[in-house]
Amino acid sequence: MSFPCTTVPLPCVAVLGPFGTYSHEAAHRFFGQSTRYEERATIKDVFRALCSSSTDFGVVPQENTIFGSVVETYDLLRDLDGGFIVGEVTLRIDHCLLVKPGVRLENIQTVLSHEQALGQCRLFLETHLPNAITEKTSSTAEAARLLLDRPPTHAAICSRVCATIFKGLVVLREAIQAESDNYTRFYVMAQERGLRHPQKTSEKRRALFRIPIWQSQTLDIGAIMSTITLKIARIDRRPLAGTPFDFVYLIEVGNRVGICETADGEEWRGIVDRTLADLRKKGAVVDLIGVW
Amino acid sequence: MSFPCTTVPLPCVAVLGPFGTYSHEAAHRFFGQSTRYEERATIKDVFRALCSSSTDFGVVPQENTIFGSVVETYDLLRDLDGGFIVGEVTLRIDHCLLVKPGVRLENIQTVLSHEQALGQCRLFLETHLPNAITEKTSSTAEAARLLLDRPPTHAAICSRVCATIFKGLVVLREAIQAESDNYTRFYVMAQERGLRHPQKTSEKRRALFRIPIWQSQTLDIGAIMSTITLKIARIDRRPLAGTPFDFVYLIEVGNRVGICETADGEEWRGIVDRTLADLRKKGAVVDLIGVW
Repeated sequence: MSFPCTTVPLPCVAVLGPFGTYSHEAAHRFFGQSTRYEERATIKDVFRALCSSSTDFGVVPQENTIFGSVVETYDLLRDLDGGFIVGEVTLRIDHCLLVKPGVRLENIQTVLSHEQALGQCRLFLETHLPNAITEKTSSTAEAARLLLDRPPTHAAICSRVCATIFKGLVVLREAIQAESDNYTRFYVMAQERGLRHPQKTSEKRRALFRIPIWQSQTLDIGAIMSTITLKIARIDRRPLAGTPFDFVYLIEVGNRVGICETADGEEWRGIVDRTLADLRKKGAVVDLIGVW
Repeated sequence: MSFPCTTVPLPCVAVLGPFGTYSHEAAHRFFGQSTRYEERATIKDVFRALCSSSTDFGVVPQENTIFGSVVETYDLLRDLDGGFIVGEVTLRIDHCLLVKPGVRLENIQTVLSHEQALGQCRLFLETHLPNAITEKTSSTAEAARLLLDRPPTHAAICSRVCATIFKGLVVLREAIQAESDNYTRFYVMAQERGLRHPQKTSEKRRALFRIPIWQSQTLDIGAIMSTITLKIARIDRRPLAGTPFDFVYLIEVGNRVGICETADGEEWRGIVDRTLADLRKKGAVVDLIGVW
């Protein structure tokens, strides 16, 4: 099976907004200047944008090195029926605590941020603000935006760049996450498998399989995985909606020393399609939802 | 290797408090009346209690059928060096929206609950309270307890029983989770492997292996799992603290038709110990953190 690839010279890329989120920064790192960025209110809205004809690509957070997989993204990948992963980008993350001018740590009673940032900064919050209320927002930059209309007892966890974008906020503390080495990895999604953007060549070859497992079936995930001879890069599990204790596994495979290490993009897509066929021959229900 | 088993006639069991949480209800289901229950402020405190000599058992939420694995529990299992899983219990969950008397849906501006309950009721919140702020609390019953001192614009998501325990709160809506069939599964933990409680005999045999995977190693999780001939019941992945993109896998194995289906408790423990030895022979770094 061969997929014709179309490259898009001036693509439209949907990101979690408002501008100033780490998703926006990651998209910028991947697509650069010659791109039209669209801000969307939630990660779900970024996925939805990929179903409209005007949006070519979307960038969504996949996992963070402190707090782990992004549940919202994985639930949307579980239900995905449009869109396809065509790339990845990893960003170093340093969270800042933003406040209104003059506010000190001891004045803070409420901290706003996305659940991932709150999770990554849990140790800081437990140690320095044990009595503060945490309030979940749809993104880190949205926390900063909301802070503008809040009393001085409120603070936001977000990127340093938000203090530049949202006038009237200052950085009170920097790098407040639990580990100094903090990274978030993003998936670059396209409207369809054949859509490509001229990008830096990468030696990394990856693909993502989605495999539902029902309690009633005899084939377990171990038996299915034994068919895969590629490197298993990560395995994630989410509940299957509607049926208690049935699951969906998302299995990311890749190349590595000794396993398809020299495969170019086209060879890699061929290898992945053959693995998909082998899995189906074994009896697994499986979808391919990304190759890059 | 044989482990002497001690049974505890009147055990002390730590649960996430205050009383009225689903953990408390699950513990009651497993241990019954003749038990001393201790309420702890957080899931972490339940794990900590297992390191003190006065607490025999603890009950912690493991996963929910709508929102998936409980991240806090998995992070504590990742770091576990005392305590051992010796059982499981599954509870049907119907979340209620509690308010002060006279409050109507349109008055609510803030909703308090544990992140799992907020996640399980995300659809209800998006549909009926799209502008409400969500505030994360350490447990569902803690949300109800906090609500007593809040203005009438606040509400809590928790168990129906909280309206009985916390006088002055009423049920405004019932069964507000995204699916009518909603279950949470809990792990029953003991201070040590040898500690048992006289319990109902179960045909289910389970064990939990913890396997760290470093990027630098050649053995991937697929190669390690090919050693396991038991049923793979669930695979979970958490980041390894301190080293970006190194992971810990938690792999729950079990019996099923055709695989150790008639093994009794002692036989099962023998089978699990042999699997552990095989995994180590293969070169995997692996800990056994539960058998039941």
